[in-house]
Amino acid sequence: MQTIPFLRKTGEAPFTDRGIKKAGQLLKPWTGEGVKGVAITGAPLSKTSISHSGAFMAPQTIRQMMHSFSTYSIEQETDMWDGVITDFGDIEMHVTDLIQSQNRIYSALKEIQSQHNGALIITLGGDHSVSAGAIKAFQETRGRVGIIQFDAHFDLRNTEDGGPSNGTPFRQLIENGVISGDQLVQLGIRDFSNGKLYHDYAKDNGVTVYTMGDIKREGLLTLLKKSVEQLKQTTDNIYISLDMDVLDQAFAPGCPAIGPGGLDSDSLIEGIQWLGENPSVKGMDIVEIDPTLDFRNMTSRLAAYIIMQFSLFYSKREGGK
Amino acid sequence: MQTIPFLRKTGEAPFTDRGIKKAGQLLKPWTGEGVKGVAITGAPLSKTSISHSGAFMAPQTIRQMMHSFSTYSIEQETDMWDGVITDFGDIEMHVTDLIQSQNRIYSALKEIQSQHNGALIITLGGDHSVSAGAIKAFQETRGRVGIIQFDAHFDLRNTEDGGPSNGTPFRQLIENGVISGDQLVQLGIRDFSNGKLYHDYAKDNGVTVYTMGDIKREGLLTLLKKSVEQLKQTTDNIYISLDMDVLDQAFAPGCPAIGPGGLDSDSLIEGIQWLGENPSVKGMDIVEIDPTLDFRNMTSRLAAYIIMQFSLFYSKREGGK
Amino acid sequence: MQTIPFLRKTGEAPFTDRGIKKAGQLLKPWTGEGVKGVAITGAPLSKTSISHSGAFMAPQTIRQMMHSFSTYSIEQETDMWDGVITDFGDIEMHVTDLIQSQNRIYSALKEIQSQHNGALIITLGGDHSVSAGAIKAFQETRGRVGIIQFDAHFDLRNTEDGGPSNGTPFRQLIENGVISGDQLVQLGIRDFSNGKLYHDYAKDNGVTVYTMGDIKREGLLTLLKKSVEQLKQTTDNIYISLDMDVLDQAFAPGCPAIGPGGLDSDSLIEGIQWLGENPSVKGMDIVEIDPTLDFRNMTSRLAAYIIMQFSLFYSKREGGK
Amino acid sequence: MQTIPFLRKTGEAPFTDRGIKKAGQLLKPWTGEGVKGVAITGAPLSKTSISHSGAFMAPQTIRQMMHSFSTYSIEQETDMWDGVITDFGDIEMHVTDLIQSQNRIYSALKEIQSQHNGALIITLGGDHSVSAGAIKAFQETRGRVGIIQFDAHFDLRNTEDGGPSNGTPFRQLIENGVISGDQLVQLGIRDFSNGKLYHDYAKDNGVTVYTMGDIKREGLLTLLKKSVEQLKQTTDNIYISLDMDVLDQAFAPGCPAIGPGGLDSDSLIEGIQWLGENPSVKGMDIVEIDPTLDFRNMTSRLAAYIIMQFSLFYSKREGGK
Amino acid sequence: MQTIPFLRKTGEAPFTDRGIKKAGQLLKPWTGEGVKGVAITGAPLSKTSISHSGAFMAPQTIRQMMHSFSTYSIEQETDMWDGVITDFGDIEMHVTDLIQSQNRIYSALKEIQSQHNGALIITLGGDHSVSAGAIKAFQETRGRVGIIQFDAHFDLRNTEDGGPSNGTPFRQLIENGVISGDQLVQLGIRDFSNGKLYHDYAKDNGVTVYTMGDIKREGLLTLLKKSVEQLKQTTDNIYISLDMDVLDQAFAPGCPAIGPGGLDSDSLIEGIQWLGENPSVKGMDIVEIDPTLDFRNMTSRLAAYIIMQFSLFYSKREGGK
Amino acid sequence: MQTIPFLRKTGEAPFTDRGIKKAGQLLKPWTGEGVKGVAITGAPLSKTSISHSGAFMAPQTIRQMMHSFSTYSIEQETDMWDGVITDFGDIEMHVTDLIQSQNRIYSALKEIQSQHNGALIITLGGDHSVSAGAIKAFQETRGRVGIIQFDAHFDLRNTEDGGPSNGTPFRQLIENGVISGDQLVQLGIRDFSNGKLYHDYAKDNGVTVYTMGDIKREGLLTLLKKSVEQLKQTTDNIYISLDMDVLDQAFAPGCPAIGPGGLDSDSLIEGIQWLGENPSVKGMDIVEIDPTLDFRNMTSRLAAYIIMQFSLFYSKREGGK
Repeated sequence: MQTIPFLRKTGEAPFTDRGIKKAGQLLKPWTGEGVKGVAITGAPLSKTSISHSGAFMAPQTIRQMMHSFSTYSIEQETDMWDGVITDFGDIEMHVTDLIQSQNRIYSALKEIQSQHNGALIITLGGDHSVSAGAIKAFQETRGRVGIIQFDAHFDLRNTEDGGPSNGTPFRQLIENGVISGDQLVQLGIRDFSNGKLYHDYAKDNGVTVYTMGDIKREGLLTLLKKSVEQLKQTTDNIYISLDMDVLDQAFAPGCPAIGPGGLDSDSLIEGIQWLGENPSVKGMDIVEIDPTLDFRNMTSRLAAYIIMQFSLFYSKREGGK
Repeated sequence: MQTIPFLRKTGEAPFTDRGIKKAGQLLKPWTGEGVKGVAITGAPLSKTSISHSGAFMAPQTIRQMMHSFSTYSIEQETDMWDGVITDFGDIEMHVTDLIQSQNRIYSALKEIQSQHNGALIITLGGDHSVSAGAIKAFQETRGRVGIIQFDAHFDLRNTEDGGPSNGTPFRQLIENGVISGDQLVQLGIRDFSNGKLYHDYAKDNGVTVYTMGDIKREGLLTLLKKSVEQLKQTTDNIYISLDMDVLDQAFAPGCPAIGPGGLDSDSLIEGIQWLGENPSVKGMDIVEIDPTLDFRNMTSRLAAYIIMQFSLFYSKREGGK
Repeated sequence: MQTIPFLRKTGEAPFTDRGIKKAGQLLKPWTGEGVKGVAITGAPLSKTSISHSGAFMAPQTIRQMMHSFSTYSIEQETDMWDGVITDFGDIEMHVTDLIQSQNRIYSALKEIQSQHNGALIITLGGDHSVSAGAIKAFQETRGRVGIIQFDAHFDLRNTEDGGPSNGTPFRQLIENGVISGDQLVQLGIRDFSNGKLYHDYAKDNGVTVYTMGDIKREGLLTLLKKSVEQLKQTTDNIYISLDMDVLDQAFAPGCPAIGPGGLDSDSLIEGIQWLGENPSVKGMDIVEIDPTLDFRNMTSRLAAYIIMQFSLFYSKREGGK
Repeated sequence: MQTIPFLRKTGEAPFTDRGIKKAGQLLKPWTGEGVKGVAITGAPLSKTSISHSGAFMAPQTIRQMMHSFSTYSIEQETDMWDGVITDFGDIEMHVTDLIQSQNRIYSALKEIQSQHNGALIITLGGDHSVSAGAIKAFQETRGRVGIIQFDAHFDLRNTEDGGPSNGTPFRQLIENGVISGDQLVQLGIRDFSNGKLYHDYAKDNGVTVYTMGDIKREGLLTLLKKSVEQLKQTTDNIYISLDMDVLDQAFAPGCPAIGPGGLDSDSLIEGIQWLGENPSVKGMDIVEIDPTLDFRNMTSRLAAYIIMQFSLFYSKREGGK
Repeated sequence: MQTIPFLRKTGEAPFTDRGIKKAGQLLKPWTGEGVKGVAITGAPLSKTSISHSGAFMAPQTIRQMMHSFSTYSIEQETDMWDGVITDFGDIEMHVTDLIQSQNRIYSALKEIQSQHNGALIITLGGDHSVSAGAIKAFQETRGRVGIIQFDAHFDLRNTEDGGPSNGTPFRQLIENGVISGDQLVQLGIRDFSNGKLYHDYAKDNGVTVYTMGDIKREGLLTLLKKSVEQLKQTTDNIYISLDMDVLDQAFAPGCPAIGPGGLDSDSLIEGIQWLGENPSVKGMDIVEIDPTLDFRNMTSRLAAYIIMQFSLFYSKREGGK
Repeated sequence: MQTIPFLRKTGEAPFTDRGIKKAGQLLKPWTGEGVKGVAITGAPLSKTSISHSGAFMAPQTIRQMMHSFSTYSIEQETDMWDGVITDFGDIEMHVTDLIQSQNRIYSALKEIQSQHNGALIITLGGDHSVSAGAIKAFQETRGRVGIIQFDAHFDLRNTEDGGPSNGTPFRQLIENGVISGDQLVQLGIRDFSNGKLYHDYAKDNGVTVYTMGDIKREGLLTLLKKSVEQLKQTTDNIYISLDMDVLDQAFAPGCPAIGPGGLDSDSLIEGIQWLGENPSVKGMDIVEIDPTLDFRNMTSRLAAYIIMQFSLFYSKREGGK
């Protein structure tokens, strides 16, 4: 075999520094073996959004943004250099049959979670509709789920006006009997971003709702501790559903439904770190980033940073899981 | 008359959810009847700006952004579903005679305020020059005005160097004898955004000036309470003139004169809520948003949100006014 | 009833010139009466696109762009001032059930064409998938259709790999027995934009294909005359399906599938004028403009201009139809 | 005096090549002396535009774009290295009194033309409203003017509906008795871009109108020769008023009123070269470029290139004038 | 090994159609074996540009744009489905030592051309500075080179004012004795884009120069035939150096040095097709596309299309080489 | 000499207000005399960046942004109207020899600091590579330097993998024996933005490192006081190296290496004010702003504001230095 000086394969990094490993390099394509630790799976579905959304591009953009970060946490003085974040790739979506796309998300994630019991899967949306299938698959393989939902919106809309969309995932889960309302805690719900009918629905079904006002008064960490404590009493595992629009528009300019009055990114990061270390947390999704609307991929950068912080604190769990 | 299945008139919302009413749907075009409660009027004038400005587009953009919000406040558990925000439309501007445009703003608003004594008119600029006519009309119909001006700038420039522009409205009001300086409180005035000559003018005329430093030290709410208390002693009604550039550039990227060192949006919203509920407040304008410069209409979104929060707390006033 | 000086209702033109009527003002919302002449209907569907597409925004953008033009043709010295282009509005799309959306396009257009036999309906996509239903409805109400398809692509893809998408409309029509291949003439098919399998399919089914090379060699007008002559022998009426990506990327920067080597806009306009005047032409659609990708709405401007030129020459038909 | 190695004053070119002089370096600020040859003057007025326009930025942008070109014409094998294009600077506009701004354009240009009889002044708009004053000044100092207007629009609107705007300059000139219609030839007038009322006005006043159709049929050069021949019979000097929107939107994406069906840039350049060499041509303006809307300053680049081609062919005139 | 339903590896196409193969799929990473036919190598160097340039991104962007095209030419009724375009990857550039980067380009390409005598290498810049090394390597491995340079500029600047930059490649080749001027034909040289000093240099060194005027008068094909005929008399092989800025700004908006008065894309494509089939042509580079400045990657799209047309006509050569 | 009414020279402000002086007007080009007080010098080098960077444009953009501010500080009630900030201009960079460019920065700044001992030079990058030469020149002319580095990154990379780049300046200073690690305090170092190898290097060399976590826990002012106290014990003067990416991406969207988890702009401004007044501080640089990536020049605006605040507090130093 011949060699050519200075040649790098298409796609390889144009410059490497011996002292720095990119967080993106921790991503290893799954090759059929059993997986442990944090892993990601793309669910590139956003045709299910009520408004036009390019959120299907987020999995790929978040992966790219992981190349903007290194593996070393100076705050923890911990290097994830030798770590691995398994990348299961993306679930293939159907061009025109959106229900089939949703079913594929459920089926693929169920199979993944079932095969890889020791793995913590982070599902990358896509829009929030992907959480319905993701959570159903999670519960069927990991036991009764308690959900921590970061969101400006209930996502409890009726499914009759438009089918199972990015406004309905938690309604679907409750209506289909997958979960009951007491398995769900919603944090960051915001003024003028929801309908009273759906607040009533949340109340009627025993969903715990913390508004942005609650967070500003009590602090996110306090509410998270309270929420996890409460959920642990009736569920087996905690699943985080992170809709990035829980953040204020100044910190997440790339969410389809941006607005003022939301969370700042530092608070969210602190919350994610705490959840990352908490051994009850066994699943996660990150949704509602539309790279076509973002500024300099700021929102995907934040998502990549959150994956890294979560993974870092996950690695601090006792027994490593 | 024939009907066609699935057909929606041009301009109708492409999707409706039975449980959600858009804040934008509260806007009802004025049809000649007497008006009560909050109402908006567009003053799409920005040729009067010292620098190039597309702020004339803001009234239309803010209306559109109201469709990004719903009618339900979860923090107050109050639904404005049945509320009405009357939309008087826009005042027609002259293509080349800017003084005539300014006069039209005054005449139209005077007529509106005069006809609709029970209404609280929010005038949507346009640049800050619209406030001169708006406040004159307000005082002539509602009694001696006390002004709470949110602004990075005095807007007390001399009128000789360029005529009545977006830098001069409060100077005009004082010089023309419409108000005296003690009727005016300015909040958020910022370093390197003003001339000493005009600070001297403010002092000489008894204008109360609170800088960003004052706000950071004492808190916006404290200063607002102090300001309203003070103004109420010599005036009949409070008028809010909200120049969005009082905000830091991170929170209001669409103002022509953006800069660092300004207010954050949460503080402003809290202040507006307090003013909304305060029965002395009887008029308002929102100015200096240029949608052609904004990112994803963030600044117009914030303006729409402010209109909703103001209206919400306005509805909590005793006796409803 | 009260009046206010200088007030214009929200949405009204901010400036009017007595000597100029905007082409957009010819658009009159349908109010249930019988319609004659040119009419438009929006089919805002683009979730059916193989690639991400905002083409569902095109009907609204094209309507806006009609306000960039006036009613007067100096070349023909004809003023359409008193003309009317009926606007049936947009067909409501389902959020998640795309097949139902396609069926609604078919149903609504069938009802429209059936009720308004004297009208020439221009359907505004949306992506090219809307043509399948539009043409089926056209043929069922107007008799055997002959199709002039302007396109860089065959749009004859198999429907198994992704369902009925923007790559399949003419395949669907043939496979479902709605048309046979000899009812279809394709103009502008381009290198490296199609698969051989689908060229074979076109040949096997008797579709007439003129490539960009053919157009450059023989001229568009010559080929159009030949095509209409041929189609008239076996069909009752001509339907134009105008995929804007038949144009070179320099002239239609807002099509999802832009590329070099395409038609220039002057040639297309000339062709449309000829077709507008030809009494055989009884239906039309304009598809594949994505306003989110366009530069200054150039492609929607061109579409609006084409509607006006078509309507102008349509009005020159003998007997006015 | 001290010196510092490698230091360049702010504003100096960061790199210079001994073999290349930038066209922009031909621009020499006027310092009070008598001027010969081509000179430019900025008339940065666009608040007079019917629609929002940033055309006031064009003089500065065109100057910058002249730094994108060199002084050497390979086609003519002529180097303008030693040439000078005098830059009179910009006429100061009033912030709020637009009529005064227009008067200043007239006064300044009259003084310039009067003082510098040997100079050919190119006035850089701004919008087309600047031509009214520019042409009046030209005629009062240089004798009876014949105007070659490149434009998609008549710019003969009535002045009652909005005052003297960018739609009215030639109407003003005729109504104010500055010119009669036979002094005006309009080239490039386009379909659906004008009102019939104003075509009638053109005809009634003896204005010569060549449409885009005329240009496509007869060729621009032919019509230019015919026009100059005709104008020379009754006027003393030719003045070119070049509204860049005579060009197709593909070639001038930065004009406020872009559209399809216009001139290509090569034809315009050829026409300008011919006019540059023609000794009758003694004045020019270039208007209606809005740099805030342009793509990569393409339209200002073209304007700069036109100034250079015009100057090159001007230098070929016999006797150098 | 386990499998998961619907899962696709990161980077795989999200949708595949059995009837269409993407041109991009013809690209096969080189794996050490001997290569025949067309192959590409990236030379991602643009720090050597006189002005700021992101042309180093072009190789990657052009590869992506090849996924916008299919393998089938309808004009030739030829499917390249089974073809291969070997992708040697990118040559690694040094972060701060630009001369070393240029040397690496030379070394790598010399090795490639030497190892793969049967391959036609298309080097993808990067800026035009990459051609100096690429052509030197070409000649040393393939015999005396005749160069067809498409360019608005001579690229014959002196090397003293800034070192070996994107303005100097052909000067370097002549000064270093690699070629003499009669081995070089330049097509498309444009007004006001060059210095007379360098035209003199071209003449003094026997470089053949065809201006845009020459092309417009005589036709590109005619000049190409003449050029190849002439070069073949004294050289062994023809090398095409395609600077995309030979095109008019309307057709190549992504070149750093855009301007009016250039070539249209159809003419260039026709010229490339002819050169592709001509057995004398044995090497090529495509340079000066800056994807950060482009609109919708139009210029990279055109480059990808040119690679495909060149490859198509290359495959028609007798004996297949 | 003649005069023309209303004429302003190219480049002059189009509007002036007698009561306001622009901060930009404080900038006076150096004319060879001795300089006191704050002065700026541009070091427009960014080809040395590991990733593509347009930071070389920042000096010019920051100067322009100074025209967005006035000279008056309302917080200090101090007007800098009569102040002067000397502008030494920009150091000329070599096109292709980056090491020579770095040497020029060193030579020019050494000469400037040497000639103007009473001046406080703010060097405007450019990327962070400019600090190596700037600090070496500072120390050689002003005595042993203590460095306060605001940065998300160590910038202590090895110089072997890419030469002296924007990742290596402080490594170069230490390795070349210009400074020892105890002369360097780094503030704001962030998670996943650095390599452990370089943290080890910092520790091994006695560099003081404060992370973002430290800043959030202890406060920036506290750490600054501690840092200056410590540095003063072993050094003669303090030099501030301000890499703007120490800020959170929400506050500095124009840095090449943006990310979440950084400093807010208010804290930075407060820190700079304190440092401005501290008599130990004698030099400064501001680096890593890429205007081509920024939104509305927000980051350059902030830099200009920081220059003004620094200059304001500098003027408050006892003895004025």
